[in-house]
Amino acid sequence: MTLKEQMEQLARQAKTASRPLARLTAAEKNACLAAMANAIENNTPALLAANDLDVTAAHQNGLSPALIDRLKLDSKRIGSMAKGLREVAALPDPVGRLLDERVRPNGLKLQKVSVPIGVIVIIFESRPNVTADAAGLCFKSGNATILRGGKEALHSNQAIASTLLDAARKALPNFPEHAIQMVTTPDRHAIGNLLALTQYIDLCMPRGGEGLIRAVAECSKVPVIKHYKGVCHVYVDAMADLAMAEAIVLNAKVQRPGVCNAMETLLVDRAIAPSFLPSVARRLHEKQVELRVDNESKRQLECVVPDLKPATEEDWYAEYLDLVLAVRIVDGVQAAIDHINTYGSAHSDAIITRDEALARQFLQGVDSAAVYWNASTRFTDGGEFGLGAEIGISTDKIGARGPMGLEELTSYKWLGFGTGQLRG
Amino acid sequence: MTLKEQMEQLARQAKTASRPLARLTAAEKNACLAAMANAIENNTPALLAANDLDVTAAHQNGLSPALIDRLKLDSKRIGSMAKGLREVAALPDPVGRLLDERVRPNGLKLQKVSVPIGVIVIIFESRPNVTADAAGLCFKSGNATILRGGKEALHSNQAIASTLLDAARKALPNFPEHAIQMVTTPDRHAIGNLLALTQYIDLCMPRGGEGLIRAVAECSKVPVIKHYKGVCHVYVDAMADLAMAEAIVLNAKVQRPGVCNAMETLLVDRAIAPSFLPSVARRLHEKQVELRVDNESKRQLECVVPDLKPATEEDWYAEYLDLVLAVRIVDGVQAAIDHINTYGSAHSDAIITRDEALARQFLQGVDSAAVYWNASTRFTDGGEFGLGAEIGISTDKIGARGPMGLEELTSYKWLGFGTGQLRG
Repeated sequence: MTLKEQMEQLARQAKTASRPLARLTAAEKNACLAAMANAIENNTPALLAANDLDVTAAHQNGLSPALIDRLKLDSKRIGSMAKGLREVAALPDPVGRLLDERVRPNGLKLQKVSVPIGVIVIIFESRPNVTADAAGLCFKSGNATILRGGKEALHSNQAIASTLLDAARKALPNFPEHAIQMVTTPDRHAIGNLLALTQYIDLCMPRGGEGLIRAVAECSKVPVIKHYKGVCHVYVDAMADLAMAEAIVLNAKVQRPGVCNAMETLLVDRAIAPSFLPSVARRLHEKQVELRVDNESKRQLECVVPDLKPATEEDWYAEYLDLVLAVRIVDGVQAAIDHINTYGSAHSDAIITRDEALARQFLQGVDSAAVYWNASTRFTDGGEFGLGAEIGISTDKIGARGPMGLEELTSYKWLGFGTGQLRG
Repeated sequence: MTLKEQMEQLARQAKTASRPLARLTAAEKNACLAAMANAIENNTPALLAANDLDVTAAHQNGLSPALIDRLKLDSKRIGSMAKGLREVAALPDPVGRLLDERVRPNGLKLQKVSVPIGVIVIIFESRPNVTADAAGLCFKSGNATILRGGKEALHSNQAIASTLLDAARKALPNFPEHAIQMVTTPDRHAIGNLLALTQYIDLCMPRGGEGLIRAVAECSKVPVIKHYKGVCHVYVDAMADLAMAEAIVLNAKVQRPGVCNAMETLLVDRAIAPSFLPSVARRLHEKQVELRVDNESKRQLECVVPDLKPATEEDWYAEYLDLVLAVRIVDGVQAAIDHINTYGSAHSDAIITRDEALARQFLQGVDSAAVYWNASTRFTDGGEFGLGAEIGISTDKIGARGPMGLEELTSYKWLGFGTGQLRG
């Protein structure tokens, strides 16, 4: 078989599996997920052995320590996968929810009901735990899934997937073959071939660095839900509670700088800058945060903290994912909104103020998936939102936006219940 | 300016306009829509004169009578445009609806609120009334719109658009310039250039024949919501009320055969075929419907109606939009579901039966935007669904599915209301 034929077979099999999968009851799906969780735990030695092959090869190929850390499984990470599957089992079934109901004057009853999306391709990078997380969430939401992990994690991913599948088949005699599949070829053209198959595939969700996601979005003919990056802002207004503002700025930047909902740019209202900036800059500097500042912030800070760097235009677009922060003084809330809508990534942004009217203006005007008033940007997360689990975060506007849990992995259909109605 | 620069200007202007547009109140938008409706009526002579230029050119260019009919405006059609705008004004504002609200254990209140999508490109064919309909619906839902009609309707479309814009500017001093724009160049590369601009454009909705829609979906880098065609089915089950079935089949095929929710294939349960098919075939023949039948239907019908044609594999995929019907005998409800999921277009399909379990199996198993039990497929329509107005019908699964009204032209954002919450 050519690569194209292989991908077509995979996609066609997934579409076929999606039909019986959509009919499984919550009890059947939950029994499967529980069995998968047990199998992951019971199979720990084999998973560690498979992971060892990947880690050894990664060392031989000179991969970075950060990448090897992401790649590495241990019994704690394996336990987390099992725990994740059990949590998904405990969540309500997102399929079959009644979203709307109306009876028309002619007596025709219409119900809008949630249904699985169908076939979802998940493309991800080095963390092997995504195999279990994504497979569990897609399975619970009744979607057939095709997983494509990083080639450096291939042994780990295959071991996890086959553990899940063996357990599912034993737990459920009518488990739909091909409900969970993996792309095993390392050929990088596999993705392009797969994502041309609009007749079989309903959605692609790439997870990883901006480069991967742009490459996927560029080549895909099927819909893609994604976020490229998280250039998140905190705007400290003249009417802010300054102690609250300082605490939120510190939290948003320092608590976990390597994630997409961490703050990358601090915007400060000109009116409050002299009383706010020096103090917060000192605290950030204590936490080893490098500051990249506009000219005016520089003037206010150069006697306060050392090692200020001038911010360039690129800094306003930058996702550092590190202890680096761009700082800019702006003229009030509308200037902050304009900066965010121009340079931001439509992910998560916050205003700190006591003025409700200004807060409402910011909440309305900032065109991002999540906008906060007096809270840290770090809350954009499926768990923090109470969605129970998260498969990713979307900054798109068609389909799900913000954190995506089980409900965000469903579409809907309209059911019409008649008694012989005809169109007049 | 090059074509690319022109399109980039148009798209950038639309994005800029989308910001103040999203902030307009319902009262402001409704006043604009009322003024637009009045202006369309008051400007009837100028609209007819512009339309005359298009119709004369169409005759000279030898366009088909059907196309010229779709192109032609008269005072009745102009009145319908005005009426449509008034109806949209009377509908509730779809922006700012509270879709979900939750207070987290840490006190953070989250609200999921509907917002405009942003910038929408509408591509359509010869009917000039789409200019007013689409502009009105996008405006009411707070979306900036870029309209691209058929080149044969350019004078008509420009006259309608400038009438709408003049009225809006007079009615609303802060009407956002570029909230409604038109692509006026006939250059066919304009669409490809425009639909590459993902930084400015959020959605494209093509309306028209399958060829146009496939070409748009193929070239677009921005999300597209669409339906390619309507290959709709009625399945008459062994447990059907045969009189009801006959009435629904006639209605779904004959009442208006040229539309996307008309039936194209009749599926009949083998057990009921001898008692159902001859009678319904006779009635369809009386209504001038050409029947394209499988071998078994042929045996049952060849002494009943003349001029039967054998159905080929292509007939199962065909959208006739005409008085032609494919007929197939199937072995029960699962065979009907399989036929529909294989050959259908995921638009609208119906089962006629008195058996609730079989109906539920069909409603669940048919993977279409609208699935009916004992009703005509012809009901898939924004007006019939009570959505008030319709900008199109989607067979997609990401974003809106089925008839799209004002609410389906919105996205959402999450608002977080805190009191200084930090992530732990």
